[in-house]
Amino acid sequence: MTAAESYAELIRRAKDLGVLNSCAAVLGWDHQTYMPTKGGPLRGEQMAFLASLAHQKFTDPKVGELLSAVEASDLVSDPVSDSAANARELRRAYDRATKIPQSLVEELARVTTQAQQVWEQAKKKNDYASYRPLLEQIVKLKRDEADAVGYKDHRYNALIEEYEPGTSVADLKELFAGLTAELAPLVKKIVASPKQPDKSVLECEFPIDRQKVFAEAAAVAIGFDFNAGRLDTTAHPFCSGVGPGDCRITTRYNPRFFNEAFFGVLHETGHAMYEQNLPAEHFGTPLGVACSFGIHESQSRLWENQVGRGRPFWDHFFPRLKQTFHSLADVSKETFYFAINDVRPSLIRVEADEATYNLHIALRFELELALLSGDLATGDLPGAWNDRFETLFGLKVPNDVRGCLQDIHWSFGGIGYFPTYTLGNLYAAQLMDAVRREFGTGIEDDFRAGDFTRLKGWLNQNIHRHGQRYRAGELCRRATGMPLSPKPFVSYLSEKFGALYGVC
Amino acid sequence: MTAAESYAELIRRAKDLGVLNSCAAVLGWDHQTYMPTKGGPLRGEQMAFLASLAHQKFTDPKVGELLSAVEASDLVSDPVSDSAANARELRRAYDRATKIPQSLVEELARVTTQAQQVWEQAKKKNDYASYRPLLEQIVKLKRDEADAVGYKDHRYNALIEEYEPGTSVADLKELFAGLTAELAPLVKKIVASPKQPDKSVLECEFPIDRQKVFAEAAAVAIGFDFNAGRLDTTAHPFCSGVGPGDCRITTRYNPRFFNEAFFGVLHETGHAMYEQNLPAEHFGTPLGVACSFGIHESQSRLWENQVGRGRPFWDHFFPRLKQTFHSLADVSKETFYFAINDVRPSLIRVEADEATYNLHIALRFELELALLSGDLATGDLPGAWNDRFETLFGLKVPNDVRGCLQDIHWSFGGIGYFPTYTLGNLYAAQLMDAVRREFGTGIEDDFRAGDFTRLKGWLNQNIHRHGQRYRAGELCRRATGMPLSPKPFVSYLSEKFGALYGVC
Repeated sequence: MTAAESYAELIRRAKDLGVLNSCAAVLGWDHQTYMPTKGGPLRGEQMAFLASLAHQKFTDPKVGELLSAVEASDLVSDPVSDSAANARELRRAYDRATKIPQSLVEELARVTTQAQQVWEQAKKKNDYASYRPLLEQIVKLKRDEADAVGYKDHRYNALIEEYEPGTSVADLKELFAGLTAELAPLVKKIVASPKQPDKSVLECEFPIDRQKVFAEAAAVAIGFDFNAGRLDTTAHPFCSGVGPGDCRITTRYNPRFFNEAFFGVLHETGHAMYEQNLPAEHFGTPLGVACSFGIHESQSRLWENQVGRGRPFWDHFFPRLKQTFHSLADVSKETFYFAINDVRPSLIRVEADEATYNLHIALRFELELALLSGDLATGDLPGAWNDRFETLFGLKVPNDVRGCLQDIHWSFGGIGYFPTYTLGNLYAAQLMDAVRREFGTGIEDDFRAGDFTRLKGWLNQNIHRHGQRYRAGELCRRATGMPLSPKPFVSYLSEKFGALYGVC
Repeated sequence: MTAAESYAELIRRAKDLGVLNSCAAVLGWDHQTYMPTKGGPLRGEQMAFLASLAHQKFTDPKVGELLSAVEASDLVSDPVSDSAANARELRRAYDRATKIPQSLVEELARVTTQAQQVWEQAKKKNDYASYRPLLEQIVKLKRDEADAVGYKDHRYNALIEEYEPGTSVADLKELFAGLTAELAPLVKKIVASPKQPDKSVLECEFPIDRQKVFAEAAAVAIGFDFNAGRLDTTAHPFCSGVGPGDCRITTRYNPRFFNEAFFGVLHETGHAMYEQNLPAEHFGTPLGVACSFGIHESQSRLWENQVGRGRPFWDHFFPRLKQTFHSLADVSKETFYFAINDVRPSLIRVEADEATYNLHIALRFELELALLSGDLATGDLPGAWNDRFETLFGLKVPNDVRGCLQDIHWSFGGIGYFPTYTLGNLYAAQLMDAVRREFGTGIEDDFRAGDFTRLKGWLNQNIHRHGQRYRAGELCRRATGMPLSPKPFVSYLSEKFGALYGVC
């Protein structure tokens, strides 16, 4: 077998796995949307069957042999060639999949399945104590996982590698320290401002059928292809990229609150446009997969916040909004715009505004680091959460439901996941900054005219089409000319909210 | 390995295949309901991947060895034991799957995929000539299939065995001859009757949302479990039994015609209640699978026609119908009942009434027999169709769209499928006859009170729970005390329509 033949066989196997995993994606989507409740047990068997088959196919020693043959050839001499990029990322995934012992995979699956159920109950009953033993087990198993995978400096580096390859604890610590130092005083000034929005205009009658029509129209306007996707309703909104020509998003509607569905749809549409514009010819291989969780989140945040919470966007959409929702008849554009940009410290991450959101993440990052290193015992988590929360937000946490029990992530073993949300916010601001430098104020004229094609085209060109050819840091440098920095994000917030609240 | 161990391993493999095939069922349902159009090519790859994997797993020589070991043991000494029934039906499927060469399977898949597209176009353009070469190829390939499988007397026996094991051309010829001899004169008398229904009452305003609510209520009333199933809208209605706890039906709504959606839902609900009441513990094995296509169709026809087009059913539902559809305010129950039982010769099988329906099938059975034997050339099909149609129905066929191009079946290779529709009608009448003998007129009092639990329970007990433990003929004999006969069906029609039209 020549190296080229090995590479071809490796790609054939990757594409086969891509098709197999896309079957699981359809079943996963169906599970959340339309599956009848009694279909649950069978769905569990189906998902386990497909996952086990995919694991078995991917960890076949033959895959390792093919990879080694490719790596020993000149197919990897140009590091950004198709073959080198595919080999690099397949190697990362293959090593991870083969280094973690099967017994640990099964133990993690067993414990996290149970933990999610217990967490759900604990959250209902404000009963952290019932959940603590499971969290304890998860932390221990994630340490074992890190040990199996291997790491430099901190076990956490092995965990975050699953979501954001190439990022380290050291990078994140520096990033969060800088960010917190800038954001905390900004938020303090905003809160103290006598100018405050009237949020009540967002809490009136918004008939669900009209919300659906309006949100879909916005999704189409920014570039979602409804012939290659869908929008459905679920309890927990998500975006599922099944594969070429098929990417599905969901939202939930609150008939008396505008933000939830509308900005949710913009957010998921941002994710979906990434999926819809990955190169179809590379489907199943790393070049056909999104770069990282942080870059994925940058796409959703960019459309939701940088665009969707901006003035030019509403210069275009506000007249149509008033035509659609008669309850807004007497509301001015400025009142509405201020209301959707309300900033205030709050207890719940998923309801947080652009300025306070990353403080929620900073808190979680600190705590999960401490849990993993053993500096923080699970028994001390609620206290540590509440203390740190008060320092960061100036708010007392009334109970664990609105404190350390609010997120599902740790219960599914997602330690290392949270920082990708902040990375997404920072990347989004830095990308938008680069777009403004390239197109000047013309890009906002586009938005005012309801035209988002130049922005979408720029993202297609600079982000989407590359798949995993570059790691996130390199992709950012190539797209924006600079390594990731919190500066564009902080400047964006200071300018926007400084003007709105008359501060800074 | 002991015989018991071989059997356990065989069942384990069958259940694995059941799970795998149930994944394909979800993807197939999604394809017809919610998949975005551009997802088509990927869906094709997914279905091919799953089908090829299932074929590969099932035709593994190890399966043959396990089967032989079971067959050589006392596990098959009681022919209706779990193990004997499972071995018998797995053997039938295994032999069929291994006897047909892979090249023929692929050629059939290729040709029928193309033929379905060409048929669709040909139907649009009334262009039989463009479709004929593909039909020619299909007939040839189905002959090859029959030769590969092996048969007695007539190649057609090898084909119908896929849908209705245990039935033969000789049985069917006798059945259709008797049936046609009885039905043709009955239809003639009905047509000549001065008493005729006013069909226009069914062709007024029926708002789709109300049709949906009304049809779902009827489905619930007769026993469909919406926690273990769904009802969606598709161009071509179907029932898909995914597996335990998950069976999905579809219908289509015509806002100005009552029958289409309502009787369609009753029909699919009949199929679905069979699927929902198969023994879940046998899922994946023959004991967890419906007996035959004919028995499946008996369940849909029984609820659609024997129950749903009967007077007692409407004694219960007619008041609610009038409350739901205000356009029926001035329509009497008798007028409505006569209208839904309109009998008249017509060109299209799927729109046919209970009395003429089987004449459509008789025609197709004759013609596909002749095509397969070579007595009829594909070039002569339209002429043969039209001649025979005029003899049977007294109607001239104006074009092939309303003649030999109307059905999709031959284009997907379904030669041998049509007779199962008639078998379903006959089984339905014979089952209902047995029910009446057992419960007397009390069963109709049940219906008048909107109570269908005794009928459903009887079907659960006598049909559903058996899966493939018995072949269709034996199942019928056990449930009704008699072998299949057209008599109950002919008596049912004569009595019902004799009274309605004042004939006989």
